[in-house]
Amino acid sequence: MQVSNSERANILVQALPYIKKYAGATVVVKYGGNAMLDDELKSAVMSDIVLMQLVGINVVLVHGGGPEINAMLKRIGKESKFIGGMRYTDEETIGIVQQVLAGKVNKDLVQLLEDAGGRAIGLCGLDGSLLKADRLEEDLGFVGEIREVNVDILRDAAQNGYIPIVSTVAAGYHGEVYNINADIAAARIAAELGAMKLILMTDVCGLLRNKDDENTLIPVVNVSDVRRLKKEGVINGGMIPKIDCCVDAVRRGVNRAHIIDGRIAHSILVELFTDEGIGTMFY
Amino acid sequence: MQVSNSERANILVQALPYIKKYAGATVVVKYGGNAMLDDELKSAVMSDIVLMQLVGINVVLVHGGGPEINAMLKRIGKESKFIGGMRYTDEETIGIVQQVLAGKVNKDLVQLLEDAGGRAIGLCGLDGSLLKADRLEEDLGFVGEIREVNVDILRDAAQNGYIPIVSTVAAGYHGEVYNINADIAAARIAAELGAMKLILMTDVCGLLRNKDDENTLIPVVNVSDVRRLKKEGVINGGMIPKIDCCVDAVRRGVNRAHIIDGRIAHSILVELFTDEGIGTMFY
Amino acid sequence: MQVSNSERANILVQALPYIKKYAGATVVVKYGGNAMLDDELKSAVMSDIVLMQLVGINVVLVHGGGPEINAMLKRIGKESKFIGGMRYTDEETIGIVQQVLAGKVNKDLVQLLEDAGGRAIGLCGLDGSLLKADRLEEDLGFVGEIREVNVDILRDAAQNGYIPIVSTVAAGYHGEVYNINADIAAARIAAELGAMKLILMTDVCGLLRNKDDENTLIPVVNVSDVRRLKKEGVINGGMIPKIDCCVDAVRRGVNRAHIIDGRIAHSILVELFTDEGIGTMFY
Amino acid sequence: MQVSNSERANILVQALPYIKKYAGATVVVKYGGNAMLDDELKSAVMSDIVLMQLVGINVVLVHGGGPEINAMLKRIGKESKFIGGMRYTDEETIGIVQQVLAGKVNKDLVQLLEDAGGRAIGLCGLDGSLLKADRLEEDLGFVGEIREVNVDILRDAAQNGYIPIVSTVAAGYHGEVYNINADIAAARIAAELGAMKLILMTDVCGLLRNKDDENTLIPVVNVSDVRRLKKEGVINGGMIPKIDCCVDAVRRGVNRAHIIDGRIAHSILVELFTDEGIGTMFY
Amino acid sequence: MQVSNSERANILVQALPYIKKYAGATVVVKYGGNAMLDDELKSAVMSDIVLMQLVGINVVLVHGGGPEINAMLKRIGKESKFIGGMRYTDEETIGIVQQVLAGKVNKDLVQLLEDAGGRAIGLCGLDGSLLKADRLEEDLGFVGEIREVNVDILRDAAQNGYIPIVSTVAAGYHGEVYNINADIAAARIAAELGAMKLILMTDVCGLLRNKDDENTLIPVVNVSDVRRLKKEGVINGGMIPKIDCCVDAVRRGVNRAHIIDGRIAHSILVELFTDEGIGTMFY
Amino acid sequence: MQVSNSERANILVQALPYIKKYAGATVVVKYGGNAMLDDELKSAVMSDIVLMQLVGINVVLVHGGGPEINAMLKRIGKESKFIGGMRYTDEETIGIVQQVLAGKVNKDLVQLLEDAGGRAIGLCGLDGSLLKADRLEEDLGFVGEIREVNVDILRDAAQNGYIPIVSTVAAGYHGEVYNINADIAAARIAAELGAMKLILMTDVCGLLRNKDDENTLIPVVNVSDVRRLKKEGVINGGMIPKIDCCVDAVRRGVNRAHIIDGRIAHSILVELFTDEGIGTMFY
Repeated sequence: MQVSNSERANILVQALPYIKKYAGATVVVKYGGNAMLDDELKSAVMSDIVLMQLVGINVVLVHGGGPEINAMLKRIGKESKFIGGMRYTDEETIGIVQQVLAGKVNKDLVQLLEDAGGRAIGLCGLDGSLLKADRLEEDLGFVGEIREVNVDILRDAAQNGYIPIVSTVAAGYHGEVYNINADIAAARIAAELGAMKLILMTDVCGLLRNKDDENTLIPVVNVSDVRRLKKEGVINGGMIPKIDCCVDAVRRGVNRAHIIDGRIAHSILVELFTDEGIGTMFY
Repeated sequence: MQVSNSERANILVQALPYIKKYAGATVVVKYGGNAMLDDELKSAVMSDIVLMQLVGINVVLVHGGGPEINAMLKRIGKESKFIGGMRYTDEETIGIVQQVLAGKVNKDLVQLLEDAGGRAIGLCGLDGSLLKADRLEEDLGFVGEIREVNVDILRDAAQNGYIPIVSTVAAGYHGEVYNINADIAAARIAAELGAMKLILMTDVCGLLRNKDDENTLIPVVNVSDVRRLKKEGVINGGMIPKIDCCVDAVRRGVNRAHIIDGRIAHSILVELFTDEGIGTMFY
Repeated sequence: MQVSNSERANILVQALPYIKKYAGATVVVKYGGNAMLDDELKSAVMSDIVLMQLVGINVVLVHGGGPEINAMLKRIGKESKFIGGMRYTDEETIGIVQQVLAGKVNKDLVQLLEDAGGRAIGLCGLDGSLLKADRLEEDLGFVGEIREVNVDILRDAAQNGYIPIVSTVAAGYHGEVYNINADIAAARIAAELGAMKLILMTDVCGLLRNKDDENTLIPVVNVSDVRRLKKEGVINGGMIPKIDCCVDAVRRGVNRAHIIDGRIAHSILVELFTDEGIGTMFY
Repeated sequence: MQVSNSERANILVQALPYIKKYAGATVVVKYGGNAMLDDELKSAVMSDIVLMQLVGINVVLVHGGGPEINAMLKRIGKESKFIGGMRYTDEETIGIVQQVLAGKVNKDLVQLLEDAGGRAIGLCGLDGSLLKADRLEEDLGFVGEIREVNVDILRDAAQNGYIPIVSTVAAGYHGEVYNINADIAAARIAAELGAMKLILMTDVCGLLRNKDDENTLIPVVNVSDVRRLKKEGVINGGMIPKIDCCVDAVRRGVNRAHIIDGRIAHSILVELFTDEGIGTMFY
Repeated sequence: MQVSNSERANILVQALPYIKKYAGATVVVKYGGNAMLDDELKSAVMSDIVLMQLVGINVVLVHGGGPEINAMLKRIGKESKFIGGMRYTDEETIGIVQQVLAGKVNKDLVQLLEDAGGRAIGLCGLDGSLLKADRLEEDLGFVGEIREVNVDILRDAAQNGYIPIVSTVAAGYHGEVYNINADIAAARIAAELGAMKLILMTDVCGLLRNKDDENTLIPVVNVSDVRRLKKEGVINGGMIPKIDCCVDAVRRGVNRAHIIDGRIAHSILVELFTDEGIGTMFY
Repeated sequence: MQVSNSERANILVQALPYIKKYAGATVVVKYGGNAMLDDELKSAVMSDIVLMQLVGINVVLVHGGGPEINAMLKRIGKESKFIGGMRYTDEETIGIVQQVLAGKVNKDLVQLLEDAGGRAIGLCGLDGSLLKADRLEEDLGFVGEIREVNVDILRDAAQNGYIPIVSTVAAGYHGEVYNINADIAAARIAAELGAMKLILMTDVCGLLRNKDDENTLIPVVNVSDVRRLKKEGVINGGMIPKIDCCVDAVRRGVNRAHIIDGRIAHSILVELFTDEGIGTMFY
């Protein structure tokens, strides 16, 4: 890149109003998709997070880990079974889910963030009873529905200067463990923390009016228009649950929820620190 | 049990001087062996830990998990290989070790402790770079030797009222992860925290002069006598590394190190709150 | 006593839920009767109090001292005169009352508690204007009725880690001093502190349906039933003022008020830390 | 008095450098003699103390009470017996001493100070184990020699905004109580607190070169000259122990010790807030 | 002056209730007129302010500086122009006003106060955006009307132990600066700080019923009587804006507003610390 | 500028290690020359300062104001007189210097910084006795030499979130005021604050080996080489006093001192946040 030092300084200065705006604010990032698989993107996300912390943002990173779970299940010769898009989770499976998410994916991210210069702490819904859940539906096994979100442990961690990284398994009320959809957990945690922003990293560039044409991106959506957009078929398929999370977060008090394109390096920073932003914003 | 209320009160009162003595002190408990396998013993340990916290002790729980690792390796069809008593740990194995310890054993303990009324947080050597390590020996693979112990994350957790539960995988200096012996890690953490006590829960009743006769228990050992006891063959076999940990901890400033019998329910409380104590104490 | 170490540990663990429940709570104990005369009971009370403090309870000890006052009056050749159960208190008498309560009984208790390992501070209603009073009835002399309870001095003492021991003489508004019934003062102090419990130590085993049969103990009384129990004659004689104090405390916001048998060693601990409790509880 | 408002303001302003100098400093006042017997002087001392607190001085008031003790002993028909100027104190006597000092004299002063607008707390050597003592001489009975001075309780009280008033009975190491000379106790407390000043209120106008001529007052004495002044007979009789206290306090780090004339109203203020001061200063 | 030490002490003691009353309170003093021109009066005001701080009053000093501005304008050959009693302030003039007030008068006072033993900090309406203003009237130029009063900077300064001295130039919303009447600014600052008192130092002895007879001073005025007093002509001429400031301050929550005679040395102290006070008080 | 969002994000990320390095550090900037005269540069400096504060740097801005002083002196018809490069400062002149620096230049900067989104407080050497000085040389009049630097007022301001802007007039010991060279004052303040960096903004691009060829810039100088560079004539003329300040600061403990080119927009940011830096660094 051929950018002069003076241009660099200019760019820093242009970020000023955004840095000011977010100083002290809480931003919950749901991390997933390609941004979690590609090493270069991964490393870009880590520096984005560290930068956010340095300029005074309280970041909470919530992650999923479908591909890693599938791989592990395969290694023990267990077939992944999905019912209506959700993983059927028997007792053996929830054990694998827990150890892959909370032990492998989570702690690997902790190490990456520490190595990128951040201070990270890897938590799951069991720590400090962060997430308490009941069974969502009888026939899905240990798939949970959130009943309580106790964010004290996240607040304490942030106050001590750590970036909490959260795996979304939850504690049941009888010693059992539940798998929780990470988008939903991120939305609920953001709400409970009174976050200024919820950012969902996805593998699409945002909500498109015509899903085959990236030029039809809808940059801003009022949550009260979501019902109409669903009827019109603009919001459909895999976008429905993601956008429902955004709507839920906004209705519970989060200022802005964003669906951004995790396939682009530093898309979080672009969203936070430029005039145009990126992806689709719900308010 | 036929203990009258008045006797109960008397017993509480007899614990008084010990409660006073340990108020505000740090005690590191290495948890392992049968006490971690038997459900009743497990639940007894959990209430012991919660009680310790309630009377003002800062407890740190360090755990291993050999049997769970073996079981998982077996499930993926991988043979456990040991060299000189230590697990040969290739890249695939360290991945399994990490996820089983930090994701399964650790978080299960967190949930148990939370359900017993404690406030727990599950950490490993990667969190806050708690344990930094190098390769111990070339031919053992990812078995690590501790280079740094950064206990800030444990102090912060304790200060916020959490009981930290620690899995002993450590961060390498090049993004790799190492498996660390849990006794050694517990000793080093105890030293770095300036702990008053290190307690190693084992499956023996302590150091015996005649290993086949429990009546020959040596209740107290000055660390300067350890060398002689090794020569005499009193300390031998599997006791050597455990006692070396105790000696190391005491030399680094821990007041007392204990080898206690984890097969007896509430052995920790007996050690802490009765005149006789239990097992063997090193000072 | 032949209690094994393991039973001891079990008993400590059984106290766990109670220790948890009372952590940080305020308990006001009215100390009097035999428990204050018998040396062994006295020493048992002192260890109970120290234990309570160690497990995180804010204890306030309020005491009377009738027998000591009588003895001193006798030594100066002054007859004790009672009107309707209350001591007629002329100017000479109130002087003796003050010095015996605040100077002898109070400070002796301070010394006992310090020697038992507690940190104690001896106060009376004059210190920090803790109790302000007016004359109760013209013909009783310096017997007072409480007008103000300023508990700042108790809160400050507790915050600094002291157990306040309180003599119930009160400051008048014109430089005079009043004698205050210790049960009443304890109830009012408990209310003002928002105490969780008020415990009155007496020389009876509680409220008995048939006062000659200890097997007819009523363990729990709803304060709204007190009027009926008085009508029925179950509450009568010397129990009336004591129970009125309990009712008053509960109505002013104290969670539970107890009449317990001070003649039994460690009756406070039995009340606090066992399932059955002891004596009669008002709620 | 015919002082104009402008003169009043001037006088306040002239106190300015002294107020500045003493802000935050600790001053220990030994209160006794006529200033404690005469009602008008008493009330003047009380306002002096309150004023000192208001301008930011940490005052500690230490008092004796010989006349009150004598009167009480007389009332119970007990003769006061003195050996070498010190009261012979048998067990009955120490009981009376304790209750008169800690219960009557002390708490009466507390009430006076509270009524004068101060916040006072009445303590003795037993509270918080402030004074620990051994027997001074076998044949004096319970007359003590100070072994420990634990001023935490005074610091805590001052920090919370209270003026501690201290009776000088001390705790023995075996549950017994000792009578302590109040001048000596004041000097030791001043030293332990790192006081800027110790002020002994007496019934003389200070150290006189010719004890019958008040015009021969020696306003300032270097403690290293005391020995010579004793030899010369200038320091003699009842002045010796008082001056020894001053010397002891200065040698233990108190900046200035003063013997002032308690028979003059507001002599403390005159000492603190005027150029000339009053009485004799030891440095 | 021939005042004995004992009378001095008495005078200090008589100030006691006032010192108590004002401890921790905020007092805003508008400093101006002769008290700011005469060196002796100036130095008296400085000691008054330092004394106030020492006895625990949070003082804020607000000053004008008309004569100094006129002198400077004259030196650069610029004529002072007044419209309806207010200075016509073109761009050149506001520059001079700002530098004379904030750079000369203000910082000279800072130095005087520091030299008198106080800790002072010199601020103006621009610092921390303390005063934000709009143009008052088109034809007066840069004469401002206050829109916002942001007293954080004053609170922070007081909390750190500084006496803030304030020049009343204000920040406009477009980078321009406005001259603000100092009486008005003092009243608004007092209100915003929740001050207990506003004291306006003037060159009159207060509100006189007959302005030529100082014996007709009205010592106390209820703000609801001001309208009537204006109608009656008692309040007229230059007193009108000053009294309007007092009324405004009282209506906005300041307990008392005073017009006092700055020509008398220590008039502030006389007002604060004597029974009679001085000048006219509005409540 | 045609920089894509992704490039922007990259640039932010590249600043990361520098932001981390300076977080919590103190940087003293001496502001002067063209950067203070040109409106665009001025506004660039203001955003640089605000950005520095936002990313956690404690900035202190020290400024001069020669041109503004000259202009004012001219307006009052006073000739500027220089002796050996230093302004001859008679009493009239120091009055003007004070009011122009502390009242005009300083407070204008405060307003600019506030309007740029910072929180600023305008101080001079008189506030909190920040700078105490004596006369430097008899024949220079009120030109001062620093005797004391009391940075408490700067620390308090920084702690409360303000950027202190400092005019370098100092308080004499007899009520007089001195003019202080701003470079020298900045160096002394940096040293006293234990600053990580001192940055002198000048109108040259740094130290040049050949002063007519900007390509001969010496980017880094060890302070021990300064003497040799002076001998060689590389350091000469107006650079001597500036470089002496840098050397003085480094010798007094400032990590790095920089001479940077204030004529380039955002030169401070370029120095702080790029690999190459700008100008000449002394260490």
